This record gives sequence, C-alpha cells and structure tokens, in this order.
Amino acid sequence: MTEDFIIGAKLGELVDHMVTSYEEEDRAQHIDRMYLPSRTEIVQTVRDLLELLYPGFVGRQHLTKHNVAFHVGDLLPRIGESLFRQINMCLCYMQEVEKPGETSQNLCDQKARRLTPTFLEGIPAIRTMLAGDVQAAYDGDPAAMNFDEVILAYPGLLAISVHRMAHALYELDVPLMPRIMSEWAHAKTGIDIHPGANIGQHFFIDHGTGVVIGETTDIGNNVKIYQGVTLGALSFPKDERGRVIREAKRHPTVKDGVTIYANAIILGGETVIGENSVIGGSVFVTSTVPPNSVVTFKPPELRLKARGEGKPKPKPLDDVGDMPDYCI
Amino acid sequence: MTEDFIIGAKLGELVDHMVTSYEEEDRAQHIDRMYLPSRTEIVQTVRDLLELLYPGFVGRQHLTKHNVAFHVGDLLPRIGESLFRQINMCLCYMQEVEKPGETSQNLCDQKARRLTPTFLEGIPAIRTMLAGDVQAAYDGDPAAMNFDEVILAYPGLLAISVHRMAHALYELDVPLMPRIMSEWAHAKTGIDIHPGANIGQHFFIDHGTGVVIGETTDIGNNVKIYQGVTLGALSFPKDERGRVIREAKRHPTVKDGVTIYANAIILGGETVIGENSVIGGSVFVTSTVPPNSVVTFKPPELRLKARGEGKPKPKPLDDVGDMPDYCI
Amino acid sequence: MTEDFIIGAKLGELVDHMVTSYEEEDRAQHIDRMYLPSRTEIVQTVRDLLELLYPGFVGRQHLTKHNVAFHVGDLLPRIGESLFRQINMCLCYMQEVEKPGETSQNLCDQKARRLTPTFLEGIPAIRTMLAGDVQAAYDGDPAAMNFDEVILAYPGLLAISVHRMAHALYELDVPLMPRIMSEWAHAKTGIDIHPGANIGQHFFIDHGTGVVIGETTDIGNNVKIYQGVTLGALSFPKDERGRVIREAKRHPTVKDGVTIYANAIILGGETVIGENSVIGGSVFVTSTVPPNSVVTFKPPELRLKARGEGKPKPKPLDDVGDMPDYCI
Repeated sequence: MTEDFIIGAKLGELVDHMVTSYEEEDRAQHIDRMYLPSRTEIVQTVRDLLELLYPGFVGRQHLTKHNVAFHVGDLLPRIGESLFRQINMCLCYMQEVEKPGETSQNLCDQKARRLTPTFLEGIPAIRTMLAGDVQAAYDGDPAAMNFDEVILAYPGLLAISVHRMAHALYELDVPLMPRIMSEWAHAKTGIDIHPGANIGQHFFIDHGTGVVIGETTDIGNNVKIYQGVTLGALSFPKDERGRVIREAKRHPTVKDGVTIYANAIILGGETVIGENSVIGGSVFVTSTVPPNSVVTFKPPELRLKARGEGKPKPKPLDDVGDMPDYCI
Repeated sequence: MTEDFIIGAKLGELVDHMVTSYEEEDRAQHIDRMYLPSRTEIVQTVRDLLELLYPGFVGRQHLTKHNVAFHVGDLLPRIGESLFRQINMCLCYMQEVEKPGETSQNLCDQKARRLTPTFLEGIPAIRTMLAGDVQAAYDGDPAAMNFDEVILAYPGLLAISVHRMAHALYELDVPLMPRIMSEWAHAKTGIDIHPGANIGQHFFIDHGTGVVIGETTDIGNNVKIYQGVTLGALSFPKDERGRVIREAKRHPTVKDGVTIYANAIILGGETVIGENSVIGGSVFVTSTVPPNSVVTFKPPELRLKARGEGKPKPKPLDDVGDMPDYCI
Repeated sequence: MTEDFIIGAKLGELVDHMVTSYEEEDRAQHIDRMYLPSRTEIVQTVRDLLELLYPGFVGRQHLTKHNVAFHVGDLLPRIGESLFRQINMCLCYMQEVEKPGETSQNLCDQKARRLTPTFLEGIPAIRTMLAGDVQAAYDGDPAAMNFDEVILAYPGLLAISVHRMAHALYELDVPLMPRIMSEWAHAKTGIDIHPGANIGQHFFIDHGTGVVIGETTDIGNNVKIYQGVTLGALSFPKDERGRVIREAKRHPTVKDGVTIYANAIILGGETVIGENSVIGGSVFVTSTVPPNSVVTFKPPELRLKARGEGKPKPKPLDDVGDMPDYCI
C-alpha cells in the first residue's frame, strides 16, 4: 500500500526529532518517571461507583432483593482494587513530586490500604446525600417527571454525584484523583465544580452548562443554581514569592435556601449570600447580601427601533420588560 | 496480589451496609422493580437513527444508489427492534408508576407495536426538516464551507437532529425516552432543548454552548440563535398542592425570522418576540417585543482606567464602544 | 420474538420511503459520491497525536529513555497512515466539490504525500508551544497543583492542544479536517475555537465552558481568558451575491498580556484590545481599548428588597458591591 511509504525513509529522522523534543522540552512528558495515575482507570472506577450509588439504573439491571447482595459483592472488590491502585499511585506520585527519589512504595501502600476502605465505608452516607439531591431536583424543576427521570437524565445530578465522591477523596487528602474525576464530570455536563467545594444537602443545578464553583466555595442546604452561574474568586492573596496562597478562602459563601438564577456572577472569599435570598439572573455581586433578600439589577434601558431605521429611540422600560418578579 | 486483600475480610460488612442503604434510602435505587428503559440502548438507537437520517456520513460509507436500499433494509429492522423494546419499556414503566401492580404487559406491547412504525414512518418528514436546518446553518454562518461540513461537524445540527426525533416521540406521548435522548445531545453539544419545545423550519443554533430552550417554548421558521441564549420560564403557576402546573405555557414564543444574539435571556410564557426582530447580545427581556424591531440595551457606562491608577475615570461611551449596529 | 414482526411486512414500504427521501432531499446525504473524510478515523488520529504530544500521559505508560524511541517509532507510522488517508480524502473531497467529475486521485495523492510529513515535522514545534501553554495554566490558576495535573485534567489545555494541530492543518490548506477536529474538542470541553484563529504563546483558558473564538481572531502572547468569553464578529461584509466575504477580518485582535474575565463579549474585526489590558467580567466591547487599561462597566444599580415586600427599593451601590478591583 502506498501509505506504507508515507513516512517510509523519513521515519528515523522523525523519531529522532520527537525524542529530542521530549528531552529538550520536559515540562509535558512523563518519561523515566515512576508514578502517574491512569485517567482511564479512574474514569472506569467512577462509572462503577455510579452503578453502586444508583443500583439498577446503569450497568446491571433487573436487580431484586435476592440478587442485589451478590451483585454488590461482585462489584465492590473490583471497585476496591482499582481504587486502591489509583489512590496508591496518586500518593506515591505526590511523594515523588515533593521529595524526588525518597518515595517509599511501602508507605503509599499502607496509606492507600487504609484510605480505600475508609472511602468505601462512606458510600452509604454519600447515597443519602444524593437521594436528597434527587429530591431537590424533582422539587425544583417543573419539567421533572419523577426521581427516575432525574437519575437517568439530569446532568446536574451526574455532576453532584461525582462531586460528592471527589470531595470525599479530597478531604482524605488524595492528590490528583479528585480533580481528574471532577474534570470528567465537567466534560460530560458542562458543570465545573472543584472537588474542594463544600456543598450542603438538597443541592440542585438546573440545566447547568457553564456553572463554575471554585475550590473554597461553601454552599449550605437547599440551594438551587441555574445555568451559567459563576461562584468565583476576586483577587488572589499572594505569598512572598508571588504565588497565590491556595488555602486562603477565595470563593463565596452561599447560605441555606438561596436561589441563584442564570448567568449570575458572585465573586470573593468574603462575599456571603444570606439565607433564603434570591440572586437574579445576570447579576454581578461582589459584596455580602443580607438574608431574605431579592437582588436584581435595574435593567439597562432597552432600546427599541424598527429595522431599517437609524439610531434606536429609547423606549420607556415598561414597554420592553422590567426585571422578573422572582416569586419563590 | 495485595489488592485482593484490600477489602478482604471487610467485604461482608461493606456489602451489608450497601444493601441496608438501598433498603433505607429507596429514592435512588431500582431494585425489585419491573421496568426501566436502558439509557445505553436508547443512545445506540439514536446513533443508528442519525445514520438513517444522514446516510453515508456516519457508520456505513460508500453508499450507492444500488446498495442503499439494502443498507436501509438492514438498518431499519435493527432500529425498529430496539425502538420497540425501549418504547415498550417506557410505556410499562409509566403504567407501573401511575398504577403500581396493575401494569398490563399486553397493553404496553400493543401500544408500542403501534407507535414504533408510526415514528419510523415520520422519519422522511424529519429528514426534510433537517435538510432545511442544514441549509439554515450554511446560510447563517460565514465560516460554513458547505452542507457536508455542517453535517460532519456542527454541534447545533446534532442538537436539532436529536431534538426533532425526541419531539416526535414526545408528541406520541412516549415517556422518559425523549428526555434521555435530549440530555444525551446536551452532553455532546452543551445545547439543552427540552423535547417538548416546538421548533419551526430552517432553525440554526451557532456555536451553541449554553443554549437552554424550555419545554413550552414555541419557535417559528427561519430563527437563528447564538451561544448562551436562554428561552426560559419566569414564575411557575402552581396548583393547590403547591406543585407547578406543567401544562401551563411557561416559556416564550419566538416568531418567524427572529435572530437572538449571544447570552440574551428571554423569559416568560406570555413573552412574544415579534417577526423579524433582532434581540441583541446580553439583553434581558421579559415582555413582548413588536415585529421588525431591534432590541439592544444602552450599554452600562464603560470605565477605563490605566493599570496602576486608582479609581477608574468614566470615559464617554463613544470611546469604548456603543452597542453594535446589528445589520442582518 | 415478537420484535421480529415489529416492522415485519411494512419493511419494504419503509425502505422505499427512506430511499425516496434520499433521492428527493439530497442536501443531507452522501450517496453515489466518491469522497468523504471519516470523522471516526480523524478523531482516533487526534487521540494518537495527543499521545505523541504528551508521552506517558495517555495510552502507553511506563516510558523510559530506553523504550521511548521504539514507542514513537511504532506510533508515528500508524498516525502517518491515517493522517495521509484522511488528508487525501479531504483534498479529493474539495476537488470534487469545486470541479465535479474532474478530480484527479493522483493529484490528491501527491499533495497528501507532501503535506503529511510536513505536518508531522511540525509536531516538535507544537510541543514547545504547548509546554508554554501548560506553564501558563500553572501560572494562571491558583488551583493548579503542577504541570501534570494540567495535562491530565484541564479542558483548556485539551482545547489549545487540538487547536494548535488543527490550525497547522488549516494553514496547510487542508479542508474539512481542521473543523472536524476543533468541533470534537468543542464537544469535549465546551470551548469553541475555530481552526483559523491565530493564537500566540503561553495561552490559558481557565474553566472554559462557553468560550467562542472566531475564525479571524488574532491573539498575542501571555493571554488569559475565562469561561463564557466570546471573541466574535459584528456585521459581516458581504459580496455582490449577498454571501459573506470569508477572508475579511471579522473577529477581534487581542494583544500580548491581556486578561479577559468571564462572560465578556468582544466583537468586531477592527476591535483591538491593547497590550496588558484587562477586560472585566460581563463587559461588552465593540471598539478598540488602549494598552495598559482596565475596562469595567459601571454596574447597573442593584436593587435589594426583602422577600415578601413589594417593589424593591434601590440601595446605594456600596451596599451590594461595586465592580471588582482587578489587581493582576
């Protein structure tokens, strides 16, 4: 086939150039390095965990009370093994980054051996939280037929499901893996929740595309968020080397019962949205909002003109819509 | 391997806890229940239907007028069988939800047996609509090289293709399946169109990420929409139990020939965007717009300051940009 | 099985209708046509190229300086062959579109035979650019742990990686393929960068969902962009047939060192964002911005009311947040 000769004689030269590139530009290669988690295996583990969280919905169907224990007994060890492998790898990876050459495989082993069952023992509690999130979706979306539809179809639920697991691993100080999990959910749903974010019960993201929730965000119970909402950082406190201080609270606090409408942007580590408040769509907030408040913006004067006319004549606001009367 | 002992002796205990969790928290499990559609099979059916809609573009290539009938004759029964299975499952699922224990497999069978060919007989008409959508994309996007590029690459076209099929099933009162299809398209494209939305001919979504089109939206012909546009609901009319009345029209009406630019938010069941009107980017509309109008907002005063300076000095609008002069 | 009879006797009729639909509506079919690239093979080639760009991160792991040359020597010919096939197909496809029936397979062959190694020889230079992008992500995101996390998890990096390859093919005048690649990355990341866009070094998109960068955009070095940013077109210059002039510069120019915050919309081929300037979140710009400037908008008056109250009382701006003080 002519394709065989596409590279043909040039192959040796191309290979040399690539290898030289790897040697000279080493910021984006993983050669002669011992430890790196496998994104493929982590994603597969997430899928298996979703099957554990929502039995009968994905993977094995036709579960009954007679066979479910066997199903779980078959699924759990598989999950346990890949979790152990990847947690182990992430821990050793981190050790190697922090103290190159001093990594003790033994230490990673022991720690992973402890963390893996700890994480799995926490799954029932995560299930309880997620059932509350399913309830919140059903209560919060008129288009939701029932819980099953939410579980089968809602991207917001997929995002919070992955988040609660990633957050558990983040709290156990497992490096890298939580972020890989959350970015997988981000790719699937358009919802970007950093694993560090603390999120309370009965949490619902409707539609979801474009939502960004930062690492040090704190969200209370019964909070509802629409598409395009950003809970982000303002300026970043820096240390003496100019690097941002990661532990500093950079992202907002959202209290219980808050609703945040589409495209609102809320920024700052000191910004608190008070209990039961409503943040209107497209609002830009960088300062604390008291409880039981509704925040909207006075809409910019809308200008209406006939097509083909010159400059638009401003029309009185009444004619083209005031801010919605947010009745919750 | 040490992994074998990761869970090891704890397995029994972990399994018990999981099974107890399933029993105690039953809102998110599907055990001892008869009917649930398979998202996996539904997604595969959608992919096969896309092959039927756009022959030669995906799946089997090198089609000729001599072999295309055989190709279709091979593809259609496969699609028919999985459609039947899933429609059947969705119907029985719904019966079981509405009258637990009274589900008649026979009745679901008969209904699915009727609906499946009805749906398939509608495919040519859907193809005609979609060819118009391809045309609209080509006409509406300067970067479009030709129809083939639109079909091979445009997320907006994928979204409307899945929508027209999901909408057909929605109109046939098939539960669950339409939503599973549309959320799959949402994951692929970032475009969220509820299967209930009525959309006319020659419809084009450019770029698309972040578009949300609600269940009771009505869109006319020759409508063009850019990324981040929301056609959403305002307040939700509720019944005496406090549940939202789903049948009420909650989402806007967009008449023929309208163009809606990026990030515009249009809300409300009584909101009508009149024929041939243009809604500017980032505009927030909650009230009816007359035909042949251009709606922009008077841009907030932009403030310009030199970096390192104190508070910004407001600059006259002219210097940093008035609203674009939307010439269509 | 009853499914066998779902279509049963109707099959012949359904097939006839489908085939008739293909004949009558020919804008969305590829029958009796010679050339069409395979999106499946192109996507697989992109995945293989990502393995070449970031050795050890995806696909084959455990690379050492002893085995890496063999790994590359195995990967490169495979990539070369599918690249050649698809470039060849795209070239012939274009020839056929421009001069139906006059396509010379020989000419496509020769041209593809030349372009394929040219593209591959450019990979080391692309790697160097991408290492700079990895650096930019690490420098620009406080939540970034290190380079490896960026490579394993960041959607912005995936988007720019695919872009730099698609752009190289675009510059080599390969039709169709660059757009198929960039729309695949768009589906994965929510980031929509047209392959024609020129992007300088050390480029970072943080979060990314909703970013749109148009075909004739020019971006300098050290530019940082947040989610939801549009670099788009205003009006489209048209030729005498009413078709938009594609070569005209329709999209903005962004100079070195600029930062553009979330949801900003910047439009127009004559719009230049000057060096080291900062464009605030949600800003709408359609006119040139001088260097070393910070552009924010005077926030619309935010209105605060207690829930249950009547119309909101406007509150002084100070109480609910002025524009952030962008300190970079």
